[in-house]
Amino acid sequence: MWDSIWLDAHLATLRAGKYGSIRRGALAVQQGRIAWVGARADLPGEPERLAREVHACGGRWLTPGLIDCHTQLVHAGSGARAFELRLQGASDAQIAQADADSAAIVRATREASEMELIRSASARLARLLGEGVTAIDIRGGYGGDAAGELKLLRVARLLGESAPLTVKTTFFATQALPPEYRGGADAYIDCVAAQMLPAAAAAGLVDAVDVSCAGAAFTREHAQRLCAAAAALRLPLRRDAAQLVDAGLAAGCAAVSIHHPLALDEAGAQSMAASGTIAVLLPGRSSFLGEPRLPPIDALRRHGVPMALATGCNPESAPATSILLMLNLACTLYRLTPEEALAGVTCHAARVLGLESSHGTLEVGKEADFVLWEIGEPAELAYAMGANPCTGVVKRGELRSAGEFR
Amino acid sequence: MWDSIWLDAHLATLRAGKYGSIRRGALAVQQGRIAWVGARADLPGEPERLAREVHACGGRWLTPGLIDCHTQLVHAGSGARAFELRLQGASDAQIAQADADSAAIVRATREASEMELIRSASARLARLLGEGVTAIDIRGGYGGDAAGELKLLRVARLLGESAPLTVKTTFFATQALPPEYRGGADAYIDCVAAQMLPAAAAAGLVDAVDVSCAGAAFTREHAQRLCAAAAALRLPLRRDAAQLVDAGLAAGCAAVSIHHPLALDEAGAQSMAASGTIAVLLPGRSSFLGEPRLPPIDALRRHGVPMALATGCNPESAPATSILLMLNLACTLYRLTPEEALAGVTCHAARVLGLESSHGTLEVGKEADFVLWEIGEPAELAYAMGANPCTGVVKRGELRSAGEFR
Repeated sequence: MWDSIWLDAHLATLRAGKYGSIRRGALAVQQGRIAWVGARADLPGEPERLAREVHACGGRWLTPGLIDCHTQLVHAGSGARAFELRLQGASDAQIAQADADSAAIVRATREASEMELIRSASARLARLLGEGVTAIDIRGGYGGDAAGELKLLRVARLLGESAPLTVKTTFFATQALPPEYRGGADAYIDCVAAQMLPAAAAAGLVDAVDVSCAGAAFTREHAQRLCAAAAALRLPLRRDAAQLVDAGLAAGCAAVSIHHPLALDEAGAQSMAASGTIAVLLPGRSSFLGEPRLPPIDALRRHGVPMALATGCNPESAPATSILLMLNLACTLYRLTPEEALAGVTCHAARVLGLESSHGTLEVGKEADFVLWEIGEPAELAYAMGANPCTGVVKRGELRSAGEFR
Repeated sequence: MWDSIWLDAHLATLRAGKYGSIRRGALAVQQGRIAWVGARADLPGEPERLAREVHACGGRWLTPGLIDCHTQLVHAGSGARAFELRLQGASDAQIAQADADSAAIVRATREASEMELIRSASARLARLLGEGVTAIDIRGGYGGDAAGELKLLRVARLLGESAPLTVKTTFFATQALPPEYRGGADAYIDCVAAQMLPAAAAAGLVDAVDVSCAGAAFTREHAQRLCAAAAALRLPLRRDAAQLVDAGLAAGCAAVSIHHPLALDEAGAQSMAASGTIAVLLPGRSSFLGEPRLPPIDALRRHGVPMALATGCNPESAPATSILLMLNLACTLYRLTPEEALAGVTCHAARVLGLESSHGTLEVGKEADFVLWEIGEPAELAYAMGANPCTGVVKRGELRSAGEFR
């Protein structure tokens, strides 16, 4: 006998990245996993005899739990002052002088206690949970030093323990060169590769490594050293690639994902396809920064590169806490179809996080993470601007009302 | 003795379109109106002796209630199918064939009962109310015929009676030429000017008239006839002006507001300034339609034309139910400052609706419509993408928690 069965729902299974719609469907849960999915008419008996709990979904749609595969959810400070100053015409130098730049966010994050970081990240997380997010990647970047990055990743793990959420972490210590290493990028990379990363990995805090070396201080060789260090620890690689022209380095190092690949060319898309690398699109960043250049969607589509979508939640480039808004922006800004957008936050996002065998689709054997939506058709999720039709979130078989998170 | 006093809050008064920030401020309410605004230190006595109720706001920010001065909140049907088909590459003809075009929305709206329209509009309204919207304009357009437009405006009035919301209506019967008048635009305008508009006005359902004649069927002369009909009824005029090159017609007719003025030139901006016409910006429409052309913000700013902001909530051009998202898009897409954006949904939006003496700023004598925000500074309202830091809404002096509307 199953633990529960969900009836009177339309299912969007997202199998193989397609809606895979089953109208008048049913889904059964056993021990936190999906035990049966199909048309209600094909159920092998009366629901009441098949399961202990029967949930009538009132004609709602049911999708896999949404997955936000790129966030910097854990940080202190805010980019609001910089945002305002820039729109008032201030220069970068004036923003730094007003103590409103990136360094101020790093300093605030470094100075914040774990409890303070948990509190501020939880407020952002509540919005995502309320929109049906059941798995998330939290990456470092604002820790400022070894201790700060470790603190940040510990907080990420704690968030996963205190919320109905699967948390994956990405080690990312090269967003900027810390001030105490000014002029000594080599020495800093040595420290990251030989000490910070191994220590964080040994503490069980690292699920993947972003080897991008952003900023003028770093070179391609630095990224390669990070690649080698991560490979030695058998950790999957990612690259944030706004400046990346070819995907060579990442492909050579077998990156799982390349993020925000604005400058990627045809050959780059082809090599991503060859190495099975996933593109992570950040339409919130495009919108927030007003970037004129967009990722090469047609080339990615033509070569069959899977496209995941994420908020990129970050105080400087996308202070975004709505995954549904990303679906809308991906369609309006990148011309993705609503189906591609939904696959980007389910099926493909699961692969980015190495969760493809347990998450991302409604299939038998996967974890029973799914969302109930008050919509007439799945396209409405990407169509609406600012709505939240989520009426319930089920995590490992357990129902939580959406209102609980708001 | 005042009815209530609000302490331990920072105030953004929005007087004259500026933040007008008062840190450590206080605001008193008497009979649903603002009786005192200022620095707490300047209060003429102990709060407990000045007011029956004392509210401690815990360091939150307080702004005027937000005003959404352009919506088509009342309609049936959805544009989601058309949105999806278009992104899949379908032509307008194919979308019409799939019964997913504008005509389908008009038909659904015409067929819907008042109760059905109230229900669907209320769901959209709930999001706006939850973000601190306390006044709104609801315009027609999807009624399809005289009876349909009257029904729609009656529903708009009913929404204002059932929610803590000031509702203004805009008569707008020329969004498209009804199919039964095909080839007979002259006859339709006669009907609108001589029958529909006077009947709606006599029923007390019209606060303003949009005289735009969209679509190829109409001419400039049709708009002028509508102007004359509205002027005869002493109703304020509006124009939706995506195609408008000069503001002449509207200025000649003393339009209160010109909406989405994409094609406006320097002279047009100047003539708007001269006639005291307000520009209503619809960044949601720009984003949703991916329009390459943006309104001439610099020219509007240079000539001192007040800029209001609205969702433009509409199933075809902006299915938007977040006014806060409009603040963000106005900054990222139009390069408004966060202060200009906030003034656009308070002070200037009030003028659009003829509510400038009673709404839009925190000033003594105005209605006590205000919002409590869990933010560090007002710029955060425009900075965040998808957050909702509203923790309470006060309408005519009465507190409602934000959660109530979600």
